[in-house]
Amino acid sequence: MTIKPLSDRILIKMEAAEETTKSGILLTGTAKEKPQVADVIAVGPGGLVDGKEVKMTVKVGDRVLTSKYSGTEVKMDGEDYTIVRQSDILAVVE
Amino acid sequence: MTIKPLSDRILIKMEAAEETTKSGILLTGTAKEKPQVADVIAVGPGGLVDGKEVKMTVKVGDRVLTSKYSGTEVKMDGEDYTIVRQSDILAVVE
Amino acid sequence: MTIKPLSDRILIKMEAAEETTKSGILLTGTAKEKPQVADVIAVGPGGLVDGKEVKMTVKVGDRVLTSKYSGTEVKMDGEDYTIVRQSDILAVVE
Amino acid sequence: MTIKPLSDRILIKMEAAEETTKSGILLTGTAKEKPQVADVIAVGPGGLVDGKEVKMTVKVGDRVLTSKYSGTEVKMDGEDYTIVRQSDILAVVE
Amino acid sequence: MTIKPLSDRILIKMEAAEETTKSGILLTGTAKEKPQVADVIAVGPGGLVDGKEVKMTVKVGDRVLTSKYSGTEVKMDGEDYTIVRQSDILAVVE
Amino acid sequence: MTIKPLSDRILIKMEAAEETTKSGILLTGTAKEKPQVADVIAVGPGGLVDGKEVKMTVKVGDRVLTSKYSGTEVKMDGEDYTIVRQSDILAVVE
Amino acid sequence: MTIKPLSDRILIKMEAAEETTKSGILLTGTAKEKPQVADVIAVGPGGLVDGKEVKMTVKVGDRVLTSKYSGTEVKMDGEDYTIVRQSDILAVVE
Repeated sequence: MTIKPLSDRILIKMEAAEETTKSGILLTGTAKEKPQVADVIAVGPGGLVDGKEVKMTVKVGDRVLTSKYSGTEVKMDGEDYTIVRQSDILAVVE
Repeated sequence: MTIKPLSDRILIKMEAAEETTKSGILLTGTAKEKPQVADVIAVGPGGLVDGKEVKMTVKVGDRVLTSKYSGTEVKMDGEDYTIVRQSDILAVVE
Repeated sequence: MTIKPLSDRILIKMEAAEETTKSGILLTGTAKEKPQVADVIAVGPGGLVDGKEVKMTVKVGDRVLTSKYSGTEVKMDGEDYTIVRQSDILAVVE
Repeated sequence: MTIKPLSDRILIKMEAAEETTKSGILLTGTAKEKPQVADVIAVGPGGLVDGKEVKMTVKVGDRVLTSKYSGTEVKMDGEDYTIVRQSDILAVVE
Repeated sequence: MTIKPLSDRILIKMEAAEETTKSGILLTGTAKEKPQVADVIAVGPGGLVDGKEVKMTVKVGDRVLTSKYSGTEVKMDGEDYTIVRQSDILAVVE
Repeated sequence: MTIKPLSDRILIKMEAAEETTKSGILLTGTAKEKPQVADVIAVGPGGLVDGKEVKMTVKVGDRVLTSKYSGTEVKMDGEDYTIVRQSDILAVVE
Repeated sequence: MTIKPLSDRILIKMEAAEETTKSGILLTGTAKEKPQVADVIAVGPGGLVDGKEVKMTVKVGDRVLTSKYSGTEVKMDGEDYTIVRQSDILAVVE
């Protein structure tokens, strides 16, 4: 069973906090926006979003920085995922 | 008797919670947006919406993720349906 | 005496609640948006609305779903009518 | 002495309530928008309004439906007039 | 010494209330918008305003109707002036 | 050391109140917008601002009217400056 | 390990307050926007942002003025960084 995001949406899996620390990135932030490292699981096709062309630049397998509280949480096969818009992705971590 | 959605609107039928669990997807979410699996019953023609071109990518028969509280509920022939905009659809589930 | 709606406006007549039930559609909804079946009496010419092209897809004689509380009520020759924008029309009922 | 409305503005004269009733149209409405019959006295040239092209479709001499509270009241030679934008006009009455 | 308005701004001088009455126009209005007769002293060049083309249609010497409270007051050589945007001008009075 | 404003931003130096009075312009205004005479020190290149083309019409050396409270204050080499957007400039004073 | 900002985002490192004073720029500001000198570490590719073309004009190595409170803080390898949008950059300091 798979989830195929629509439009400019991206399915990500937040990394556990331990893994985040291990990777050498410790994330702090303001109260209203706490970035977190996540793995990209699936990427929507992009195209016209609210009448504006969106090209997807994030790829499946990328590790990305995004806000802990943005998007919508989904549980599938016992695992937690999140669906965010590409504009909620701050950066790619390499 | 049929309901033909206008513009970028889509007629969906929310799956019962049991069926949702059975499919292996358990949906959680923030207080203000709870996604739910729904079946697409009818799809509007798209076109200019608020002056912006919208192309319909969701098809009749798709199983989709959408917010439980988005859209407008309609009861027809004793069954509950919901009319949402395509932008309220988060993903297609396969 | 006739009312000719301007722009993307549409003159509709809400069906009585009894008739609504008779047609097999019982309408429920959230507190802030209650859809209702209405008959289309007159349709504006469309064109540029707030600088954006609007093409009218609803026709005189259509039965439509719209919110009970959207638009402006007008009484003409003892009958109640409502003037709504086409974007307030959710679907055509056949 | 004359008032020449700019842009998409229109100079109208509200009809007295008696005349409104006489014409067979009795206007009701929600608390925040009460439509009223008015006579069009002068029409602006249209053109670019907030960067968007507006074509004037209302003509001098038209009887129109508009909100009682929209626009700006002006008294000229002892008579009350109102300056509204064309988008405040709901319909032409014939 | 002169003030040259930028963009779509216009330098006007409000007429004294007596003069307003003398001209046969007595201005009333809602609490939040009171139109007043003013003389146009200087007109900006127009052009792109917030990315939208604005063509100036008001000319130096025009008598205009505008809101008493719109714009910014400026005192120059002992006289009070106001700088408004052209969109704050309701009509030209002739 | 120099500050080079980006985009449609302009570096200005507010004139002292005495100098303002001396120039024959005394500025008053509403509580929320008090215009003040300032000297233009540096001008950004303009270009696309929020996706809209902005052409810079204010030049270094211009004396301008702007709001006392708009923009961001910066102290450099013991002097106070302000960085404003060109749209915050009301007029050029000559 | 590196952070590659997406879209019009820029990775900056705020200079310590001492260094800021040493450079001869002392920054003050209103309560809601306090500018600060920062060094540009990485720059996103620009491109379409919310459907509007953004060209990056800030380069790696630039010293820039930005608000202390804008953007999102990130800690990497024990150092604090901030991710801001290019539009949050007020000026380049040379």
